[in-house]
Amino acid sequence: MITGDAMQIDLNSDMGESYGAYSIGADEEILRWVTSANVACGWHGGDPTVMRRTVQRAKELGVRVGAHPSYPDLLGFGRRVMQISRQEARDYMLYQIGALRAFADALGVRLQHVKPHGAIYNAAAKDRDLSLGIAEGVADAGGDLILVGLPGSEIVKAGREVGLPVAREAFGDRAYNEDGSLVSRKIAGSLITDPDTVAERVLGFVRGSVNAITGRGIRIEADTICLHGDTPGAGAIARRVRLRLEAEGVKLAPMGECVGR
Amino acid sequence: MITGDAMQIDLNSDMGESYGAYSIGADEEILRWVTSANVACGWHGGDPTVMRRTVQRAKELGVRVGAHPSYPDLLGFGRRVMQISRQEARDYMLYQIGALRAFADALGVRLQHVKPHGAIYNAAAKDRDLSLGIAEGVADAGGDLILVGLPGSEIVKAGREVGLPVAREAFGDRAYNEDGSLVSRKIAGSLITDPDTVAERVLGFVRGSVNAITGRGIRIEADTICLHGDTPGAGAIARRVRLRLEAEGVKLAPMGECVGR
Amino acid sequence: MITGDAMQIDLNSDMGESYGAYSIGADEEILRWVTSANVACGWHGGDPTVMRRTVQRAKELGVRVGAHPSYPDLLGFGRRVMQISRQEARDYMLYQIGALRAFADALGVRLQHVKPHGAIYNAAAKDRDLSLGIAEGVADAGGDLILVGLPGSEIVKAGREVGLPVAREAFGDRAYNEDGSLVSRKIAGSLITDPDTVAERVLGFVRGSVNAITGRGIRIEADTICLHGDTPGAGAIARRVRLRLEAEGVKLAPMGECVGR
Amino acid sequence: MITGDAMQIDLNSDMGESYGAYSIGADEEILRWVTSANVACGWHGGDPTVMRRTVQRAKELGVRVGAHPSYPDLLGFGRRVMQISRQEARDYMLYQIGALRAFADALGVRLQHVKPHGAIYNAAAKDRDLSLGIAEGVADAGGDLILVGLPGSEIVKAGREVGLPVAREAFGDRAYNEDGSLVSRKIAGSLITDPDTVAERVLGFVRGSVNAITGRGIRIEADTICLHGDTPGAGAIARRVRLRLEAEGVKLAPMGECVGR
Repeated sequence: MITGDAMQIDLNSDMGESYGAYSIGADEEILRWVTSANVACGWHGGDPTVMRRTVQRAKELGVRVGAHPSYPDLLGFGRRVMQISRQEARDYMLYQIGALRAFADALGVRLQHVKPHGAIYNAAAKDRDLSLGIAEGVADAGGDLILVGLPGSEIVKAGREVGLPVAREAFGDRAYNEDGSLVSRKIAGSLITDPDTVAERVLGFVRGSVNAITGRGIRIEADTICLHGDTPGAGAIARRVRLRLEAEGVKLAPMGECVGR
Repeated sequence: MITGDAMQIDLNSDMGESYGAYSIGADEEILRWVTSANVACGWHGGDPTVMRRTVQRAKELGVRVGAHPSYPDLLGFGRRVMQISRQEARDYMLYQIGALRAFADALGVRLQHVKPHGAIYNAAAKDRDLSLGIAEGVADAGGDLILVGLPGSEIVKAGREVGLPVAREAFGDRAYNEDGSLVSRKIAGSLITDPDTVAERVLGFVRGSVNAITGRGIRIEADTICLHGDTPGAGAIARRVRLRLEAEGVKLAPMGECVGR
Repeated sequence: MITGDAMQIDLNSDMGESYGAYSIGADEEILRWVTSANVACGWHGGDPTVMRRTVQRAKELGVRVGAHPSYPDLLGFGRRVMQISRQEARDYMLYQIGALRAFADALGVRLQHVKPHGAIYNAAAKDRDLSLGIAEGVADAGGDLILVGLPGSEIVKAGREVGLPVAREAFGDRAYNEDGSLVSRKIAGSLITDPDTVAERVLGFVRGSVNAITGRGIRIEADTICLHGDTPGAGAIARRVRLRLEAEGVKLAPMGECVGR
Repeated sequence: MITGDAMQIDLNSDMGESYGAYSIGADEEILRWVTSANVACGWHGGDPTVMRRTVQRAKELGVRVGAHPSYPDLLGFGRRVMQISRQEARDYMLYQIGALRAFADALGVRLQHVKPHGAIYNAAAKDRDLSLGIAEGVADAGGDLILVGLPGSEIVKAGREVGLPVAREAFGDRAYNEDGSLVSRKIAGSLITDPDTVAERVLGFVRGSVNAITGRGIRIEADTICLHGDTPGAGAIARRVRLRLEAEGVKLAPMGECVGR
């Protein structure tokens, strides 16, 4: 996003989703290239020991930390929509943010943002009631946490409505429809895996324009770009994106700076 | 415990152990008579919605709030010993305290204390390593939280070792051995259910002497008295204890005052 | 349902939903009056020890036993819709049925039926894919288990499609729309709590006609009537229904007989 | 173990411990070389979909299937001792065996054995009460399931006491003390990772003698050899052991044959 004279952008990635004996993701590789880490809070992945370790590692690498709360669905890795009430959403967010914040505080790290995970992120994008519950839970947590959502989503609207700073998120490895929505994963070409193409598209978001899957240029307002850590070659893609952005003179800055705070 | 001229004592009780569709305990009845509430954090009982409601109700009734963290064992209600490492104990405590603190902060309530629940409380009493893990987790949480344990227990020692304020706890409804340990629940006469007898014994703790099961007077140093909420007639016992203490001129004061803070 | 000369009906109720330290329902009271028990399998309620005890008690009282499987959602008591795949539904059913059947077999009881619990029952009623997953899981379990669903529901259709015996269920304590669907719980008058009225309506189901909420008579084909155990006065209602049916010469028979098997 | 003229042995390995989005173990690689698979039942690892897939794959490769039940501790992967009662052990075993058997039955596979997992296996080895609970749960399940335990362990004794066939297990990759107990993992040299050495030791078990860590030959009676799947190079070790045994004329036979049934 262009702020004043300089172009700057935040790169975020989901982290700390390992659980007990189970390892997942390429945290160590990705952490080197991003500026904000979304740390799982134990409900879809992550556990207290993983949370401590992940916050510690992010701190060492100078990466800002946020919460990545989820539906209570470890078996489904938080990827299945559940019908929860606005009040439940609010309480579930607050619980998970509080749990992660305790580790951040203990390690001298200030929590920066909240990015809902997986199915609740997608469900809330189109559900005002659920988004309000999420935003209220984040507001309850205090500390000017930034709420992350899709541009134009109900999450972003609800965040603004309750007075939260918000960050609009774009995806470098996903194709877009002309209306700015994501092309369904079921459609061929929806996922972009070539590092150079991803880097090119991320640069497009920064400069304000990318091509939709139809080939037509569209404008996506983004404060932060998500780099997935669970795709093959995720580390290489993250590296490529970062180096390309730097080569083009784009400043990498944590979300807190990119939303003008 | 006698502090200066006046006698004062804290009454604590476990609260907020209901879960989802399941209700347990006589929270509403007990909350009227105690000065400190130990609120379950979702691992042996409690859930985010119950946590919010419990903290809210304690606030309304002027009862101070603490965390009541547990082993991760909902099926066993936290009453079964699990072999966890010192690091796990530390991380598990911090996670649960953080989750509860988020609700306390959101409701403008300052967290006062941490009392480990059930099996981990009993196991830690005799386990220095486990107690150190617990104490370190509480210390990580900051905010001068008081750690609650049996007088002379490893929990109390570990709490002091890491620089925490500690509260020594006595049980009005349990018989004691001459060495100050609790008589096993398996032995006849170990549980005291008559409200007047319980009230009398609580008064004894305040004045510094109760009779052991052998009939001999012993000294138990206590800053806080636990009133169980899951026994039949728990509300009536709590009421009787409170009224008797007040009739005898004992000041009821939350744990934070009773440990001289 | 009228079978040959005689009228007969099955009365079923959900059972064994207690969990660990948590008790719920009026199992003992209800078990005396019903002919089929739907036993929770540990995913929304119930645990192995409760399962054993519930099957044992049903056996002693001559009540037939079925499985009452659910979404994996203890926190929500299985009352929240989750988006699971057909394959997941199939595997989740089979897992839970197998777990319960082990207790039934150990106690010399033959499993009679499967009634999905709460949200998955309601979601599947209108979801062919989910219903097929459920029916396939029940078919996988073998043993000619009867699948229970609303008359005309996708569950019943899917059950027939995969070759299962099916039982159509009616609710004595719920108002119906003219099209035979249940009146939403949110609408006044949707719940019927007067024991005599419930008994009267159950008799209506047996005889083939009840009044819709509009007052117009409608026909509901039912092989089994559900009596809820979690409403106040549930035991009294169950007793009243049973005695009224017997007084009217209706034979109470377990589901296996009512579906002509 | 020498049976009649021929030497024969069973090779077993833990399988199906992946969970939801989490993958663990080298199941596919190991399954080619073993004769019996211990399939996780969802309590320390495994889920219904993984269970189906694992049983299916074992069937395709002609590997016999058994249950691998655990304490209810997914977070600790079943590796932490929990204090459960004899009745709980019995009910927990029966639940998990039943769940797995449903998949086995559905796929036309007969369940062969039960091997308790991790901490409960080790705790029960020295705990008669816990072992009796386990053995009773296996006996409840019926079907002549073989109970697996360390030679001389309380598990094996309890299994015999309740009338179960038992299989005595040895570990090719672990050092032994002179008394036949396993050398603690904390001691240097307790783990053996060289494929040839492991193969040599497995051959020793078959022939009736291996060297203790002291160098002295000891006799270990074994009906089945465990090959761990979670060590680096596990597939290569399994292959080496299998080929060596075959080269030496040892017959590889599933547990059911090795215990003379």
